[in-house]
Parts: sequence; structure tokens; C-alpha cells
Amino acid sequence: MAFVTLNPGTLLAPVPAAMISCAAEGVSPNIITLAWVGTICSDPPLCSISVRKERYSHDIIEKSGEFVINLCGKAQMPAVDLCGVKSGRDTDKFKLCGLEPVKAEGMTWAPAISGAPVYLACKVKDMMELGSHDMFTGEIVSVGVDEGLLDESGRIDYEKAQLIAYNHGAYYELGRALGFFGYSVAAPDVLERRMKQLNGK
Amino acid sequence: MAFVTLNPGTLLAPVPAAMISCAAEGVSPNIITLAWVGTICSDPPLCSISVRKERYSHDIIEKSGEFVINLCGKAQMPAVDLCGVKSGRDTDKFKLCGLEPVKAEGMTWAPAISGAPVYLACKVKDMMELGSHDMFTGEIVSVGVDEGLLDESGRIDYEKAQLIAYNHGAYYELGRALGFFGYSVAAPDVLERRMKQLNGK
Repeated sequence: MAFVTLNPGTLLAPVPAAMISCAAEGVSPNIITLAWVGTICSDPPLCSISVRKERYSHDIIEKSGEFVINLCGKAQMPAVDLCGVKSGRDTDKFKLCGLEPVKAEGMTWAPAISGAPVYLACKVKDMMELGSHDMFTGEIVSVGVDEGLLDESGRIDYEKAQLIAYNHGAYYELGRALGFFGYSVAAPDVLERRMKQLNGK
Repeated sequence: MAFVTLNPGTLLAPVPAAMISCAAEGVSPNIITLAWVGTICSDPPLCSISVRKERYSHDIIEKSGEFVINLCGKAQMPAVDLCGVKSGRDTDKFKLCGLEPVKAEGMTWAPAISGAPVYLACKVKDMMELGSHDMFTGEIVSVGVDEGLLDESGRIDYEKAQLIAYNHGAYYELGRALGFFGYSVAAPDVLERRMKQLNGK
């Protein structure tokens, strides 16, 4: 094989498609769907979200110093898409999508989105102006999980969440599990047991 | 439904599972697999990668000011996993995984990984100490695509790349396309045509 060189571009994939919810004093709750989202530190647990200055949510997040990252599953489509193409300036996106803002632990203003499989409530630590986008880094101060996703032992059943990924302009479901972290050096019995678990057999 | 509150944790998902290649003057090429990777700006195109200080690749990237993000497909398993669990201090990971370092356009030291579907060659702009991890932000200065992934019209056929996602400790293939950006407001004929394209029908 050989590589063909292309112009620089944001081709990292797959990335999350997350609905970010926010609100501020005197500002109703809003949602913006973002793919420029990532984990940037494990301890303390930090995430980054990048938002264009001209987006309605930008100033809300800057004002309140809070945002909530809502992971999205198949059940959240097409709200995920609608909240990426519509602006909160002229639409109540919660109403438009039939979603409800609910209390996110540790947040004063920003709500979580009812029905999301998992939310990560973040306090803004820093904002960096990078060009087209400003990057907000946020410390995850609480995590909420849909109680229906917890199994008998209190663990999160991620298969049930049916999370979606964003891959070069399109949303995809996750398919088969190919391995777990460390599977390439796992003992044969561990490998067999864990792979069966992962693929729900 | 109701949310159950859990302790803060890095539960963002799915995220990329990318092999990051690096090298420096007097230091042989190395690979580290990372999931704490994201796009943080469109213009200029910027990515972030977060690396623990104690990882062998950390100092190499700091020294050379370069890294290459290699997207990974099913064909790159189990190298993806091996390069996440082994250290380059005591292993030549290219040799271990049967991979070859190849020229990445615009890089002086950091190679791309032969066989990767897509690489993003990055020059370090900044390093931020966040706690367990340091975040390197990098400007994408060139992109390389496996020539076998280009269709007749020169577009990248992402279906063929079979990219993998990392979801709470496990690697997953991407499944069915659920929609494209803007599908929720697309005209019926556009919707039908594009969905057929996406699912390769």
C-alpha cells in the first residue's frame, strides 16, 4: 500500500456525537450537538468541548461556567441531528425534540437531558481561543446513569445503551465487540470468558 | 426513567482508538495507542492527545514536537491493543506488530504506520499539564490516505476503512449508518439517496 497525501483536515474518526446541555441565569436550557468532544485527563477527570464563538450555546456556557455532556444512543436519534442543525436562538430545542431538562448533580444551571443513557456534568476550568472554535475544558463533577442500564450487580450495561459514533459526516451504531483492553495479552480462558460477556452470549 | 448518580469518571464514549506514532533525533520510532484523542478546532485543524508523563512516548513527542495520529481499522487489530499495553522502553513495537514506519508528509521525525487507513501528521502547538495526563495540542499539517480507500472519483471510501471505536474498555466495529449530518431536515429524495449510499446499497 501507499499513502496519498491530502490537504490538512479534521479527519479524526470515529468521534462521539454528544448532546451538550447548558443554561444560565435568565437563559432557558439549550442543547447543542458536538463531535469535537474528548476526554483529556483521567485524574482529575476532564473533558474538552469545542464550540464556535457564534453558536448560541457558546455564551451560555461562558456565562454559567457549566455544561453537561449527554452520551447519545439510538433512542436519541434524530434529536442528536436536529440539535446540531437548529439554533437555540430561534427554537426551544428541548420542546422541538420532545426532551426534558432534568437536574444534573452538582450543576447550578446546566440540566441533563432526560432519557440520555449517561450524563457527565462539567464545571468549566478554562477556555482557549483556537481559531474557528473555542475549547472549553471541564472537570467532570458528577456522572448520571439511566437506572434502566444498571444490571443486577450495579454495573452499567453499555450494550443496552446502544451508543452512536460520528464518522466523517454520518452517525453509526456500534457493531460487534472486537476485543477488550489487554485482550492481545490475555490468558485463553480470560479471553474466552470476556469475549462472550462483551458480545452478550 | 431516572438518573442514578455515580462518582465522577471518564465515561465519555465512544472515542477513537488511535495509534500515535512518534520518533525523535536518536530515538527509534515508537507507537502508543490512545483513546484520549479528539478534534478541538476546524480552522486551523487541531487535535489533542493526552499522554501520561511516565509513558515512553511522552518525552519523544515533547522532544521532537511532532506526532502522527493513525486511524485504526479492523485490519490493525490486535496491534492497536498491543501498542496500548506494551512499553516502547523494552519493545520495538513496530517489529512486534509487524508494522513499518513510513514517511509522513511534513514531519521531520514522526513516521506514519504503513497499512493505517488514514494518518494525520501533527506539529505540537502546546502542552498543558492537567494532572495524570499532559495534553498535547497539535496542528494537522498533512493527511495521508491509503490509496486503496480512494474511489473512482477520488473520495475516501470510509466503509472500506472499517474504523474501530473504543467504548468503555472494549474495541467495537462500526455497524449500520443511522443518518448523515442534517438528515433530520433533509428532503425525502436526498434522504433516500444518501442513506442508500451510506449503507453501500
